[in-house]
Amino acid sequence: MSSAAVQTPPPFTVDDYLARARRVVAAASERGLSGVLVTPGPDLVWLTGYQPTAITERLTVLVLAPDQEPTLVVPTLERPDAEAAEGVRGMKVVDWADATDPYLVAAPLLRPDGRYGISDSAWALHLLGLQKGLPGTAYESLTEGLPMMRAVKGPDELARLTAAGAAADAAYGEIVKVRFAGRRETEVAANLAGLLRHFGHEQVDFTVVGSGPNGANPHHEAGDRLIQPGDAVVLDFGGLMFGYGSDTTRTVCVGEPTQAIRDVHEIVRLAQEAGVAAVRPGATCQDIDRAARAVITDAGYGDAFIHRTGHGIGVTTHEPPYMVEGEEQPLVPGMCFSVEPGIYLSGRFGVRIEDIVTVTQTGGVRLNNTDHGLALVE
Amino acid sequence: MSSAAVQTPPPFTVDDYLARARRVVAAASERGLSGVLVTPGPDLVWLTGYQPTAITERLTVLVLAPDQEPTLVVPTLERPDAEAAEGVRGMKVVDWADATDPYLVAAPLLRPDGRYGISDSAWALHLLGLQKGLPGTAYESLTEGLPMMRAVKGPDELARLTAAGAAADAAYGEIVKVRFAGRRETEVAANLAGLLRHFGHEQVDFTVVGSGPNGANPHHEAGDRLIQPGDAVVLDFGGLMFGYGSDTTRTVCVGEPTQAIRDVHEIVRLAQEAGVAAVRPGATCQDIDRAARAVITDAGYGDAFIHRTGHGIGVTTHEPPYMVEGEEQPLVPGMCFSVEPGIYLSGRFGVRIEDIVTVTQTGGVRLNNTDHGLALVE
Repeated sequence: MSSAAVQTPPPFTVDDYLARARRVVAAASERGLSGVLVTPGPDLVWLTGYQPTAITERLTVLVLAPDQEPTLVVPTLERPDAEAAEGVRGMKVVDWADATDPYLVAAPLLRPDGRYGISDSAWALHLLGLQKGLPGTAYESLTEGLPMMRAVKGPDELARLTAAGAAADAAYGEIVKVRFAGRRETEVAANLAGLLRHFGHEQVDFTVVGSGPNGANPHHEAGDRLIQPGDAVVLDFGGLMFGYGSDTTRTVCVGEPTQAIRDVHEIVRLAQEAGVAAVRPGATCQDIDRAARAVITDAGYGDAFIHRTGHGIGVTTHEPPYMVEGEEQPLVPGMCFSVEPGIYLSGRFGVRIEDIVTVTQTGGVRLNNTDHGLALVE
Repeated sequence: MSSAAVQTPPPFTVDDYLARARRVVAAASERGLSGVLVTPGPDLVWLTGYQPTAITERLTVLVLAPDQEPTLVVPTLERPDAEAAEGVRGMKVVDWADATDPYLVAAPLLRPDGRYGISDSAWALHLLGLQKGLPGTAYESLTEGLPMMRAVKGPDELARLTAAGAAADAAYGEIVKVRFAGRRETEVAANLAGLLRHFGHEQVDFTVVGSGPNGANPHHEAGDRLIQPGDAVVLDFGGLMFGYGSDTTRTVCVGEPTQAIRDVHEIVRLAQEAGVAAVRPGATCQDIDRAARAVITDAGYGDAFIHRTGHGIGVTTHEPPYMVEGEEQPLVPGMCFSVEPGIYLSGRFGVRIEDIVTVTQTGGVRLNNTDHGLALVE
């Protein structure tokens, strides 16, 4: 098993980060927001490169607003760590000490009558603190206010997602060679995690191995079940490489599949194909869901496709845009997301097929390119 | 190196969980709250044993209120996982499907004019969704509304914390035997992590190795620095064992300490001693901070003690109650928290000493019992 030489992309610079901050401020203004409040998590990583050791009850928040310097509010004792982050080098830092009120430190950075976008995953504790300290302010989640803040990837980000996708494909190329029958799901999951790392992932986020009836629970991870000959096995795996995500699913069969597994797999394959084929600039997110879902519904399995068709991917493996009924966001070149229809037959088996797709000027291009047929494993 | 045989405590039962839920409802009513909303994280683990595979933008919330059955709202595709949790077996479960509005599912469980406590770490996204869907409701963070919800540990919890503390002590007993000089902080940190696991931790949360000047940054974890002869080295480590936390700190010296290191270490030792000595039912949290801080301030190092004296511990390693100026919560038998004063001399070194202490009917008892003197390592 060779490990393809992957070139490490050059790190993001302080100018890269400041350019992102400027784009966010412009988008916020256009949306009628007074600014944006970013708490630790993927939004902050994307805007500054800073990730606190732990996300705790201590307030850390980046305030972005027009006509003021990007300002990071941090606990005093985390200031040195924050200042070591590349993006923070170009920003103002203010700190607050334990036993003082962090919202008093943040308040002067906000307009008392302002309306702000705030990170989805900001703690309720902090939102309530801001609402109490500045009763005239209003808030909306960034998913609502600026859902596409991180959705359109630059070429520097796309290069990382492409590398992550290729590594996940390489992992799939090897996992189909290992023995499945008679081994526990957790053992195959451990193989998958090792392969993702071997092919360059610095972080493994999930390695779903759903064999037989376990495959019918789309959120099953991997358990003690011994994989049986004849099982359909859903393999859904991904993590981070160069800070960007991979996420791909294939369903394999241990030895000879039943006709039912073959038929259901083929329906899902066609649904996934239809979802990807629908990708083009100007199509809406729900169009992708509808295209994939129609195939499954027409085949009589509509009730068995119990989740949305896809989700965005970037510095996380799970983010806007969501390919779901009701999401009318138009697709824009540079967006990257999963197309992952599935059919789940309770007590029997499940099938899911997933690729990451990026929107180009003319259509959709897969970042996962392993075979979509039903692979037979031992 | 022997691994003391530790008996696995019996698992919590559905009745244990339901008893906790009843206590929470009673405490909420007493506090004038209409109920409590608990999202995934430690509060939910404590109340149900349920921890979703990932905490995502999909709403999962446990609604506890008087005169209604505890009800868990979950995404449809996570329902099987949720129902597998011991505590959830005794509760009602309602689910919502992708592309439907989860707040519409949650709303009938709330009083339109109610005031609810909500998990500190609930996503702002969800709080804003509830505020929008039910504009007459009000919210406060559980830290504000029911800060002591998980603070008083039952005997079943204390047994787990005691085991975790003893395991951390055993790890310390071994780490002082390894070589420090000439090795990187990260190597010693890896030794520490291995020892915590060896002695029974299922999860390692942090292994701080702050050598020389790195010890002066209380949030330094461990880096590439080669540890030098003469360095003071802060070792702060912990994780989870049987689902409950450990967290202890000792500062060691590589070879012969300078008089400055000896003096500062002795001040911190006395401060920690004073903090622990102040623990008794009815004393307030800030009394503990004041007792420890007074020793350091009197010795002229007040400015160098830049964090609060302690934090609670339970199903997390970092939770209320906080031993900090302004926190007037009285101590109650069964509370468990850290007492961890420190002195941080920028560019030179840092010293911190930390034990977990539990409040008894008459005073405080340490759950960490390794020597508090300045250990000399090689």
